[in-house]
Amino acid sequence: MFSHEMDIRVRYGETDQMGLVYYGNYCLYYEVARVEAIRSLGITYRSLEESGILMPVVRVESKYIHGAQYDDLIRVRSTVPELPDRFITFRVEMFRDQQIIHQAKVVLCFRDAVSGKRMRTPPTIIDKLAPYYSP
Amino acid sequence: MFSHEMDIRVRYGETDQMGLVYYGNYCLYYEVARVEAIRSLGITYRSLEESGILMPVVRVESKYIHGAQYDDLIRVRSTVPELPDRFITFRVEMFRDQQIIHQAKVVLCFRDAVSGKRMRTPPTIIDKLAPYYSP
Amino acid sequence: MFSHEMDIRVRYGETDQMGLVYYGNYCLYYEVARVEAIRSLGITYRSLEESGILMPVVRVESKYIHGAQYDDLIRVRSTVPELPDRFITFRVEMFRDQQIIHQAKVVLCFRDAVSGKRMRTPPTIIDKLAPYYSP
Amino acid sequence: MFSHEMDIRVRYGETDQMGLVYYGNYCLYYEVARVEAIRSLGITYRSLEESGILMPVVRVESKYIHGAQYDDLIRVRSTVPELPDRFITFRVEMFRDQQIIHQAKVVLCFRDAVSGKRMRTPPTIIDKLAPYYSP
Repeated sequence: MFSHEMDIRVRYGETDQMGLVYYGNYCLYYEVARVEAIRSLGITYRSLEESGILMPVVRVESKYIHGAQYDDLIRVRSTVPELPDRFITFRVEMFRDQQIIHQAKVVLCFRDAVSGKRMRTPPTIIDKLAPYYSP
Repeated sequence: MFSHEMDIRVRYGETDQMGLVYYGNYCLYYEVARVEAIRSLGITYRSLEESGILMPVVRVESKYIHGAQYDDLIRVRSTVPELPDRFITFRVEMFRDQQIIHQAKVVLCFRDAVSGKRMRTPPTIIDKLAPYYSP
Repeated sequence: MFSHEMDIRVRYGETDQMGLVYYGNYCLYYEVARVEAIRSLGITYRSLEESGILMPVVRVESKYIHGAQYDDLIRVRSTVPELPDRFITFRVEMFRDQQIIHQAKVVLCFRDAVSGKRMRTPPTIIDKLAPYYSP
Repeated sequence: MFSHEMDIRVRYGETDQMGLVYYGNYCLYYEVARVEAIRSLGITYRSLEESGILMPVVRVESKYIHGAQYDDLIRVRSTVPELPDRFITFRVEMFRDQQIIHQAKVVLCFRDAVSGKRMRTPPTIIDKLAPYYSP
């Protein structure tokens, strides 16, 4: 399975008056981690968009276990549990000092920017991911 | 069942370069709709917090059907499907021109601001909601 | 002089852990107030963009007097101090219970979406604004 | 003069439908750069807050020269032009490929978290900064 880890520092502007990261702002962390996971494969999401492929999010499931706090350095692990086809799924786990604080599942599809039509996962992505799922 | 509807206008700053509302920003809409739903019961979330009760989000499930666009006036329906106990659930449906564009389920708990301990739904909320679920 | 007033309710997600609106989020309020000011003239910013005219911000000056708090209903007054030409300026004043809490000046230009070139204020806007500045 | 540089990667969620970073989101970059500048002095803003000192922003002036784009790696230089006293000023310059794209001036004050009263710059900060301004 393809998996990638990185650290994200919580910004002040991402907290709310409860003193924790606002619940909607975890989506920014999923995004950053997903983009860096893809970059580690040698593909930039920017170049995908420039070639006319959009990746809109179609589903998100988030489980808030412990709130991330300002200035925390959060370890974010993104895993693609299976070779994508019409959808690509990222499982996200966040850790603070080895303790899990958040889990999520983010499902995206692929869309042709011009026609607006859904498409299968582009071959450039499949080619990079396939070795992680070979039997 | 208790249900509440309101309109939310999409702000420019809530869109991203795909020309649609950024996926994390729907959480702002859930929040605004939930707060106004509670206000319609005669309770403000602000006063709850001032009385020492926090309502952190513990789970979110979002389904993106059609993307909301800048300046859209989105009708947001919030429904509490059952009388809350240790958790309160809001089901959210968003409509543009009568067409459903987004669905979500948001689960929150109640926490004592001083001790940090979880608590049951406060009686002030139960009292207001109970008539909607009487057999 | 053209001036417009509206109320904006502070959202939870706009606060930070200081318990006040995050300083960058006032820009959302300037935006909403500016868009509604223009709408009150019979023009939507959305239709301007659809006709190929962009209005990027080129300068902002913000003075934070008293912090806005969660659930505050803020009165926002937007004033266009002079008939625009190559730039349009909005002066923004925010009030809570008649007390001024924030001031800003936002300068925008007009840009052709296709060529990217700067342009003068479109006649549709000048025509609507001119009566407010006639000698 | 004390000066600090760092790189910030533009996130997708920070763009708007103009295809550029939303004008209010530059404040997040000022914040991150300011916090890292302070950290490079051996002080964390988090520890300042934990010791009861808040640093609210009182003034911002922003000049938008060229819009930052998704996935840009922006070099952000923060400079404290003079030894702070009742206020601390940060001058911010942003560069993309050596070209300046944004300038700002951010002024903050210091406030006692308990009493709410304004205070002078804490000695811990003065001690770290003073060597940069010695005659």
